Amino acid sequence: MITESLEEYLHEHIPLSKAMQVSVIEANLNKVVLSAPLLPNINHIGTAFGGSESAVAILAAWSLLHVRLDSAGIPCTIIIQRHSIDYEQPVPKDFTAQAHLTKPEGWERFIRTLEAHGRARINISSNIKCDAQQAASFEGDFIAIKPDSQPHSSQA
Amino acid sequence: MITESLEEYLHEHIPLSKAMQVSVIEANLNKVVLSAPLLPNINHIGTAFGGSESAVAILAAWSLLHVRLDSAGIPCTIIIQRHSIDYEQPVPKDFTAQAHLTKPEGWERFIRTLEAHGRARINISSNIKCDAQQAASFEGDFIAIKPDSQPHSSQA
Repeated sequence: MITESLEEYLHEHIPLSKAMQVSVIEANLNKVVLSAPLLPNINHIGTAFGGSESAVAILAAWSLLHVRLDSAGIPCTIIIQRHSIDYEQPVPKDFTAQAHLTKPEGWERFIRTLEAHGRARINISSNIKCDAQQAASFEGDFIAIKPDSQPHSSQA
Repeated sequence: MITESLEEYLHEHIPLSKAMQVSVIEANLNKVVLSAPLLPNINHIGTAFGGSESAVAILAAWSLLHVRLDSAGIPCTIIIQRHSIDYEQPVPKDFTAQAHLTKPEGWERFIRTLEAHGRARINISSNIKCDAQQAASFEGDFIAIKPDSQPHSSQA
Protein backbone atom coordinates (compact mmCIF):
# COMPACT_ATOMS: atom_id res chain seq x y z
CA MET A 1 0.00 0.00 0.00
CA ILE A 2 1.53 3.29 -1.03
CA THR A 3 1.78 6.38 1.11
CA GLU A 4 -1.21 8.18 -0.40
CA SER A 5 -3.63 5.26 -0.22
CA LEU A 6 -2.56 4.51 3.37
CA GLU A 7 -3.45 8.07 4.37
CA GLU A 8 -6.78 7.79 2.58
CA TYR A 9 -7.46 4.43 4.26
CA LEU A 10 -6.70 5.80 7.74
CA HIS A 11 -8.82 8.93 7.28
CA GLU A 12 -11.73 6.89 5.93
CA HIS A 13 -11.70 4.00 8.41
CA ILE A 14 -10.37 5.65 11.58
CA PRO A 15 -11.96 9.12 11.63
CA LEU A 16 -9.90 10.21 14.64
CA SER A 17 -6.85 10.10 12.32
CA LYS A 18 -8.59 12.77 10.21
CA ALA A 19 -9.53 14.83 13.30
CA MET A 20 -5.85 14.68 14.34
CA GLN A 21 -4.90 15.67 10.74
CA VAL A 22 -2.48 12.76 10.48
CA SER A 23 -0.37 12.66 7.30
CA VAL A 24 1.65 9.72 6.00
CA ILE A 25 5.21 10.91 5.38
CA GLU A 26 6.77 7.55 4.55
CA ALA A 27 5.46 3.99 4.44
CA ASN A 28 7.62 1.04 3.49
CA LEU A 29 8.70 -2.35 4.84
CA ASN A 30 11.29 -0.85 7.17
CA LYS A 31 9.38 2.01 8.68
CA VAL A 32 6.25 4.08 8.67
CA VAL A 33 6.43 7.75 9.54
CA LEU A 34 3.25 9.70 10.29
CA SER A 35 3.04 13.38 11.17
CA ALA A 36 0.46 15.41 13.05
CA PRO A 37 0.17 19.17 13.50
CA LEU A 38 0.11 20.64 17.00
CA LEU A 39 -3.12 22.63 16.77
CA PRO A 40 -5.79 19.87 16.62
CA ASN A 41 -3.69 17.91 19.14
CA ILE A 42 -2.87 20.65 21.61
CA ASN A 43 -3.50 20.42 25.35
CA HIS A 44 -4.18 22.79 28.24
CA ILE A 45 -0.52 23.86 28.49
CA GLY A 46 0.09 24.44 24.78
CA THR A 47 1.95 21.20 24.04
CA ALA A 48 0.77 18.00 22.36
CA PHE A 49 -1.90 16.06 24.28
CA GLY A 50 -0.51 12.69 25.43
CA GLY A 51 -3.64 10.99 24.08
CA SER A 52 -2.86 12.33 20.62
CA GLU A 53 0.74 11.19 20.82
CA SER A 54 -0.23 7.64 21.80
CA ALA A 55 -2.98 7.52 19.15
CA VAL A 56 -0.58 8.60 16.38
CA ALA A 57 2.00 6.10 17.68
CA ILE A 58 -0.63 3.32 17.49
CA LEU A 59 -1.55 4.34 13.93
CA ALA A 60 2.11 4.27 12.84
CA ALA A 61 2.67 0.84 14.40
CA TRP A 62 -0.58 -0.55 12.99
CA SER A 63 0.33 0.84 9.55
CA LEU A 64 3.78 -0.76 9.56
CA LEU A 65 2.30 -4.18 10.25
CA HIS A 66 -0.43 -3.54 7.66
CA VAL A 67 2.16 -2.62 4.99
CA ARG A 68 4.38 -5.61 5.79
CA LEU A 69 1.54 -8.15 5.77
CA ASP A 70 0.11 -6.73 2.53
CA SER A 71 3.55 -6.94 0.98
CA ALA A 72 3.91 -10.55 2.16
CA GLY A 73 0.61 -11.40 0.47
CA ILE A 74 -1.09 -12.14 3.81
CA PRO A 75 -3.70 -9.40 4.31
CA CYS A 76 -4.91 -9.67 7.90
CA THR A 77 -7.12 -7.93 10.40
CA ILE A 78 -4.74 -6.21 12.82
CA ILE A 79 -5.77 -5.34 16.36
CA ILE A 80 -3.89 -3.92 19.34
CA GLN A 81 -3.70 -5.98 22.52
CA ARG A 82 -1.78 -3.70 24.88
CA HIS A 83 0.66 -0.81 24.80
CA SER A 84 2.80 1.40 26.99
CA ILE A 85 4.27 4.82 26.37
CA ASP A 86 6.81 7.03 28.14
CA TYR A 87 6.39 10.76 27.63
CA GLU A 88 9.99 11.92 27.82
CA GLN A 89 9.85 15.51 26.64
CA PRO A 90 7.10 18.05 26.01
CA VAL A 91 6.06 18.45 22.35
CA PRO A 92 5.60 22.18 21.67
CA LYS A 93 5.24 21.84 17.85
CA ASP A 94 4.07 19.47 15.11
CA PHE A 95 5.34 15.95 15.71
CA THR A 96 5.98 12.63 13.98
CA ALA A 97 5.56 8.99 14.97
CA GLN A 98 8.05 6.57 13.42
CA ALA A 99 7.27 2.87 13.74
CA HIS A 100 9.65 -0.09 13.49
CA LEU A 101 9.62 -3.74 14.50
CA THR A 102 10.90 -3.94 18.08
CA LYS A 103 12.71 -7.20 17.21
CA PRO A 104 13.12 -7.51 13.44
CA GLU A 105 14.66 -10.98 13.92
CA GLY A 106 11.27 -12.22 15.18
CA TRP A 107 9.45 -11.50 11.90
CA GLU A 108 9.98 -14.94 10.30
CA ARG A 109 8.72 -16.70 13.39
CA PHE A 110 5.70 -14.36 13.53
CA ILE A 111 4.84 -15.26 9.90
CA ARG A 112 5.27 -19.01 10.60
CA THR A 113 2.94 -18.77 13.61
CA LEU A 114 0.43 -16.76 11.57
CA GLU A 115 0.46 -19.33 8.76
CA ALA A 116 0.19 -22.25 11.20
CA HIS A 117 -2.44 -20.90 13.60
CA GLY A 118 -4.24 -18.16 11.65
CA ARG A 119 -3.14 -15.54 14.18
CA ALA A 120 0.10 -14.31 15.73
CA ARG A 121 1.36 -11.52 18.00
CA ILE A 122 4.20 -9.09 17.40
CA ASN A 123 5.61 -6.12 19.30
CA ILE A 124 6.02 -2.85 17.41
CA SER A 125 7.71 0.33 18.64
CA SER A 126 6.97 3.92 17.67
CA ASN A 127 9.11 6.92 18.48
CA ILE A 128 7.46 10.30 18.81
CA LYS A 129 9.78 13.05 17.63
CA CYS A 130 9.54 16.81 17.55
CA ASP A 131 12.17 18.77 15.58
CA ALA A 132 14.07 15.46 15.18
CA GLN A 133 14.34 15.16 18.98
CA GLN A 134 13.00 12.06 20.71
CA ALA A 135 9.93 13.03 22.77
CA ALA A 136 8.07 9.80 23.61
CA SER A 137 8.66 6.03 23.36
CA PHE A 138 5.76 3.71 22.56
CA GLU A 139 5.68 -0.08 22.31
CA GLY A 140 2.63 -2.23 21.76
CA ASP A 141 1.60 -5.82 21.10
CA PHE A 142 -0.45 -6.27 17.95
CA ILE A 143 -2.32 -9.37 16.80
CA ALA A 144 -2.69 -10.25 13.14
CA ILE A 145 -5.64 -12.47 12.29
CA LYS A 146 -6.05 -14.15 8.91
CA PRO A 147 -9.48 -13.56 7.33
CA ASP A 148 -10.67 -17.13 7.98
CA SER A 149 -9.90 -16.86 11.74
CA GLN A 150 -11.99 -15.04 14.35
CA PRO A 151 -10.67 -12.43 16.81
CA HIS A 152 -11.30 -12.83 20.53
CA SER A 153 -10.25 -11.14 23.76
CA SER A 154 -8.46 -8.25 22.13
CA GLN A 155 -9.23 -5.28 19.95
CA ALA A 156 -7.95 -2.33 17.97
CA MET B 1 -15.03 21.99 39.37
CA ILE B 2 -18.49 20.83 38.49
CA THR B 3 -19.37 18.37 35.74
CA GLU B 4 -20.46 20.97 33.21
CA SER B 5 -17.51 23.28 33.61
CA LEU B 6 -15.10 20.32 33.42
CA GLU B 7 -16.59 19.31 30.05
CA GLU B 8 -16.35 22.90 28.83
CA TYR B 9 -12.74 23.10 30.03
CA LEU B 10 -11.75 19.87 28.26
CA HIS B 11 -13.45 20.84 24.98
CA GLU B 12 -11.87 24.28 25.03
CA HIS B 13 -8.33 23.35 26.06
CA ILE B 14 -7.91 19.86 24.60
CA PRO B 15 -9.70 20.01 21.22
CA LEU B 16 -9.29 16.27 20.65
CA SER B 17 -11.77 15.76 23.52
CA LYS B 18 -14.32 17.67 21.42
CA ALA B 19 -13.46 15.69 18.26
CA MET B 20 -14.02 12.50 20.28
CA GLN B 21 -17.30 14.03 21.58
CA VAL B 22 -16.33 13.30 25.19
CA SER B 23 -19.01 14.03 27.80
CA VAL B 24 -18.53 14.30 31.55
CA ILE B 25 -20.99 11.93 33.23
CA GLU B 26 -19.75 12.30 36.80
CA ALA B 27 -16.92 14.23 38.42
CA ASN B 28 -16.26 14.15 42.13
CA LEU B 29 -13.46 13.40 44.60
CA ASN B 30 -13.94 9.65 44.34
CA LYS B 31 -14.26 9.17 40.62
CA VAL B 32 -14.58 10.80 37.26
CA VAL B 33 -16.63 9.12 34.55
CA LEU B 34 -16.38 10.29 30.94
CA SER B 35 -18.28 8.87 28.00
CA ALA B 36 -17.58 8.83 24.27
CA PRO B 37 -19.78 7.74 21.37
CA LEU B 38 -18.56 5.04 19.00
CA LEU B 39 -18.92 6.90 15.70
CA PRO B 40 -16.17 9.57 15.96
CA ASN B 41 -13.98 6.94 17.65
CA ILE B 42 -14.60 3.97 15.34
CA ASN B 43 -11.85 1.94 13.70
CA HIS B 44 -11.42 -0.18 10.57
CA ILE B 45 -13.30 -3.13 12.07
CA GLY B 46 -16.27 -1.20 13.48
CA THR B 47 -15.17 -1.12 17.12
CA ALA B 48 -13.59 1.67 19.18
CA PHE B 49 -10.10 2.71 18.07
CA GLY B 50 -7.54 1.86 20.77
CA GLY B 51 -6.11 5.37 20.46
CA SER B 52 -9.50 6.83 21.37
CA GLU B 53 -9.86 4.50 24.35
CA SER B 54 -6.45 5.44 25.74
CA ALA B 55 -7.06 9.16 25.09
CA VAL B 56 -10.41 9.10 26.96
CA ALA B 57 -8.77 7.10 29.77
CA ILE B 58 -6.06 9.77 30.06
CA LEU B 59 -8.67 12.54 30.15
CA ALA B 60 -10.62 10.78 32.92
CA ALA B 61 -7.48 10.22 34.99
CA TRP B 62 -6.25 13.78 34.43
CA SER B 63 -9.70 15.12 35.37
CA LEU B 64 -9.83 13.17 38.63
CA LEU B 65 -6.50 14.61 39.73
CA HIS B 66 -7.61 18.08 38.57
CA VAL B 67 -10.85 17.86 40.59
CA ARG B 68 -9.06 16.57 43.71
CA LEU B 69 -6.32 19.20 43.63
CA ASP B 70 -8.82 22.00 43.00
CA SER B 71 -10.89 20.74 45.91
CA ALA B 72 -7.79 20.63 48.14
CA GLY B 73 -7.08 24.28 47.27
CA ILE B 74 -3.87 23.39 45.42
CA PRO B 75 -4.52 24.13 41.75
CA CYS B 76 -1.63 22.60 39.77
CA THR B 77 -0.46 21.97 36.26
CA ILE B 78 -0.95 18.26 35.68
CA ILE B 79 1.05 16.35 33.09
CA ILE B 80 1.26 12.67 32.19
CA GLN B 81 4.63 10.93 32.49
CA ARG B 82 3.84 7.41 31.26
CA HIS B 83 0.95 5.03 30.85
CA SER B 84 0.05 1.48 29.90
CA ILE B 85 -3.22 0.00 28.75
CA ASP B 86 -4.52 -3.53 28.18
CA TYR B 87 -7.27 -3.86 25.60
CA GLU B 88 -9.23 -6.77 27.03
CA GLN B 89 -12.41 -6.83 24.97
CA PRO B 90 -13.58 -5.18 21.76
CA VAL B 91 -15.80 -2.09 22.22
CA PRO B 92 -18.64 -2.29 19.67
CA LYS B 93 -20.68 0.63 21.12
CA ASP B 94 -20.36 3.90 23.02
CA PHE B 95 -18.01 3.55 25.97
CA THR B 96 -17.05 5.15 29.28
CA ALA B 97 -13.76 5.72 31.10
CA GLN B 98 -13.95 5.70 34.89
CA ALA B 99 -10.92 6.97 36.79
CA HIS B 100 -9.89 6.29 40.38
CA LEU B 101 -6.73 6.60 42.44
CA THR B 102 -4.80 3.34 42.01
CA LYS B 103 -3.73 3.53 45.68
CA PRO B 104 -6.05 5.89 47.60
CA GLU B 105 -3.90 5.41 50.72
CA GLY B 106 -1.06 7.20 48.95
CA TRP B 107 -2.97 10.49 48.59
CA GLU B 108 -1.80 12.11 51.82
CA ARG B 109 1.82 11.36 51.04
CA PHE B 110 1.37 12.73 47.51
CA ILE B 111 0.02 16.00 48.96
CA ARG B 112 2.87 16.22 51.49
CA THR B 113 5.44 15.73 48.71
CA LEU B 114 3.67 18.31 46.55
CA GLU B 115 3.65 20.86 49.38
CA ALA B 116 7.30 20.18 50.25
CA HIS B 117 8.82 20.01 46.77
CA GLY B 118 6.35 21.84 44.53
CA ARG B 119 5.77 18.69 42.49
CA ALA B 120 4.72 15.09 43.11
CA ARG B 121 3.79 11.97 41.15
CA ILE B 122 0.73 9.76 41.52
CA ASN B 123 -0.62 6.73 39.67
CA ILE B 124 -4.22 6.85 38.45
CA SER B 125 -6.24 4.02 36.90
CA SER B 126 -9.05 4.25 34.37
CA ASN B 127 -11.37 1.45 33.39
CA ILE B 128 -12.91 1.48 29.94
CA LYS B 129 -16.38 -0.04 30.01
CA CYS B 130 -18.93 -0.82 27.34
CA ASP B 131 -22.46 -1.82 28.43
CA ALA B 132 -21.10 -1.98 32.02
CA GLN B 133 -18.61 -4.65 30.95
CA GLN B 134 -14.90 -4.08 31.54
CA ALA B 135 -13.18 -3.61 28.15
CA ALA B 136 -9.76 -2.06 28.85
CA SER B 137 -7.53 -1.30 31.86
CA PHE B 138 -5.40 1.84 31.90
CA GLU B 139 -2.92 3.07 34.50
CA GLY B 140 -0.69 6.08 34.24
CA ASP B 141 1.73 8.19 36.26
CA PHE B 142 0.79 11.85 36.48
CA ILE B 143 2.87 14.72 37.82
CA ALA B 144 1.29 17.67 39.59
CA ILE B 145 3.33 20.87 39.54
CA LYS B 146 2.51 23.87 41.70
CA PRO B 147 2.32 27.16 39.76
CA ASP B 148 5.59 28.47 41.16
CA SER B 149 7.53 25.34 40.05
CA GLN B 150 8.70 24.55 36.52
CA PRO B 151 7.98 21.29 34.66
CA HIS B 152 10.85 19.30 33.13
CA SER B 153 11.32 15.95 31.37
CA SER B 154 7.65 15.07 31.19
CA GLN B 155 4.52 16.32 29.52
CA ALA B 156 0.79 15.96 29.05
